Amino acid sequence: MIELEVDLGERNYPIYIGEGLLSDSSLYEPYIAGRKVMIVTNETVGPLYEQQVRHALASYEVDTVVLPDGEQYKNWETLNLIFDGLLEKAHSRKTTIVALGGGVVGDMAGFAAASYQRGIDFIQVPTTLLSQVDSSVGGKTAINHPLGKNMIGAFYQPKAVIIDTLTLQTLPPQEVSAGIAEIIKYGLIRESDFFIWLEKNIQGIKGLDSDVLTYAIKTSCACKAEIVEADEKEGGLRAILNLGHTFGHAIETHKGYGSWLHGEAVASGMLMAAELSHLEGWLSVEDVDRIRAILVDSDLPVLGPEGMLINDYHRLMSVDKKVMDGTLRLVLMKGIGDAVVTSSFSSENLNTVLSK
Amino acid sequence: MIELEVDLGERNYPIYIGEGLLSDSSLYEPYIAGRKVMIVTNETVGPLYEQQVRHALASYEVDTVVLPDGEQYKNWETLNLIFDGLLEKAHSRKTTIVALGGGVVGDMAGFAAASYQRGIDFIQVPTTLLSQVDSSVGGKTAINHPLGKNMIGAFYQPKAVIIDTLTLQTLPPQEVSAGIAEIIKYGLIRESDFFIWLEKNIQGIKGLDSDVLTYAIKTSCACKAEIVEADEKEGGLRAILNLGHTFGHAIETHKGYGSWLHGEAVASGMLMAAELSHLEGWLSVEDVDRIRAILVDSDLPVLGPEGMLINDYHRLMSVDKKVMDGTLRLVLMKGIGDAVVTSSFSSENLNTVLSK
Repeated sequence: MIELEVDLGERNYPIYIGEGLLSDSSLYEPYIAGRKVMIVTNETVGPLYEQQVRHALASYEVDTVVLPDGEQYKNWETLNLIFDGLLEKAHSRKTTIVALGGGVVGDMAGFAAASYQRGIDFIQVPTTLLSQVDSSVGGKTAINHPLGKNMIGAFYQPKAVIIDTLTLQTLPPQEVSAGIAEIIKYGLIRESDFFIWLEKNIQGIKGLDSDVLTYAIKTSCACKAEIVEADEKEGGLRAILNLGHTFGHAIETHKGYGSWLHGEAVASGMLMAAELSHLEGWLSVEDVDRIRAILVDSDLPVLGPEGMLINDYHRLMSVDKKVMDGTLRLVLMKGIGDAVVTSSFSSENLNTVLSK
Repeated sequence: MIELEVDLGERNYPIYIGEGLLSDSSLYEPYIAGRKVMIVTNETVGPLYEQQVRHALASYEVDTVVLPDGEQYKNWETLNLIFDGLLEKAHSRKTTIVALGGGVVGDMAGFAAASYQRGIDFIQVPTTLLSQVDSSVGGKTAINHPLGKNMIGAFYQPKAVIIDTLTLQTLPPQEVSAGIAEIIKYGLIRESDFFIWLEKNIQGIKGLDSDVLTYAIKTSCACKAEIVEADEKEGGLRAILNLGHTFGHAIETHKGYGSWLHGEAVASGMLMAAELSHLEGWLSVEDVDRIRAILVDSDLPVLGPEGMLINDYHRLMSVDKKVMDGTLRLVLMKGIGDAVVTSSFSSENLNTVLSK
């Protein structure tokens, strides 16, 4: 088992990575303060893994809320199912929520934990590659609004993140690819050596090779932890984690949540960012080609949705959380492994990229 | 103008109290970081005071969201009107919300500020006596759930609280009384001298005498600030601010939000707490009589709703935020000005009080 630490002072927490951790009581117990636990999962993950988690939590009173599966349910109605469950079973401020599932479950269970009785403890148990390498670490929780993704939420850190890599064995290939998109992101924004390693090991990740996977997850979590430690509430640096996300969120919102997987939308958004960085003279054509190649190798899209117009992008990107007093800011690359948040790009170049 | 400070380190903020502050630009400007402001008000308060606030904010781009008026609207649907307004007008993370209204507006605008894009700035401009002496200070924000009051929310501090006592001149007498309930609360939990002063000055408050009102508001805010400074997130001491609230919230939920005013429910809840404290041998019958008398003088109820049964109370109180691992805790009094949070009372005595 690998243990990392997210060092946030009084909000410190560990990330455990390994095989079979789901059913290890000793990983949960130090982080549960009361007698009661609420497992929040979904209709896909629950049948596969809920019993293992319940087994690990045998010494607590455990209730479960099962949510529908999919980004299109990451909204208030579904969030309310968690509040209903907590109140119907009279869960108090001492209750701990265990988020068992992918990014949608983690984001919603985390926001429910942030808001229920103004804040209760929660533990992230991510079961998809995307949530294991990205969304379960760092305390961003949210639901979507019809006009914008992740617009309503909180910065709220978990007490622990328990990553059982065996859960990836049941993950559909399309979801593995979506997770790879966020792994590639770390290489692009900050870790050029890791990017080179990824260029050689994409097949190993796709094939769920245990050692390769574990190294990719560990490196991703460590990179994310470092950035979050430096800038927990996204005052500056943390925004680079949003490479490809301004384009990607626009795509997800435009297509209707759940139509494109988040990782897929981010993949084509990252290539847009690369192409714009090239047009601005910052990234060589060879590097753009390398980025396109690794995304294609990962079975990820490198173009936006057909029929999505420049105006669709502009309208949806105008509410991006990085906008400051009306000015759009994007994460672009000065090189592979060197991302910057900037508003200094020409709108002509942006439109060229968006019209591809 | 009186200025108090809520000392919470990096979350420090001032409370300004005086006549005509609503239209004083210089009180807002230091607390607005961007170019845009969203005023959140309701259909009753907006027509009376929105123009004054807009006048003070003439150098910003100002939008307004007008909510329906009443506790029955303190729910997700109404909260969403704020998010809709912010997103339709493309408000960014740099926007400041100005909460113009009573406790319901402040609680919802504050929770919207806590959650919009994971947190934006807000300023409290309370226009009712209850919100001026209590809910606008201390950073408790929330909406109601059908199964419990204030169950979904955040601890999220405003950047400033601007209390214009002239707004009380348009307040209906019933709402003045509701505010007095929370003022009396400070005397009961911690300020015995203030309680004695209140016994002599209730008529002055009811009559909206400027000096008397200002002293009552200042003393209330100072007491609240002191308690919040000592225990921002209600780990212990802060819970004494909930004197009468466990009973009161049960009454409000049972009757349907908006049927009893919050201050009215708290008033009868405080007398229940006094009576239980007496049955436990902590409070003399004379003190219970003084408490009853000042509530009656304030035109506040001293009994729960007719037809509300012991079981109704128990069911609704079981989700109170002070419950710990299944055990109900109440704020009781060892004397006037000396409140404690305790679970050591007999259920027989509790039932005696509830069955009155």
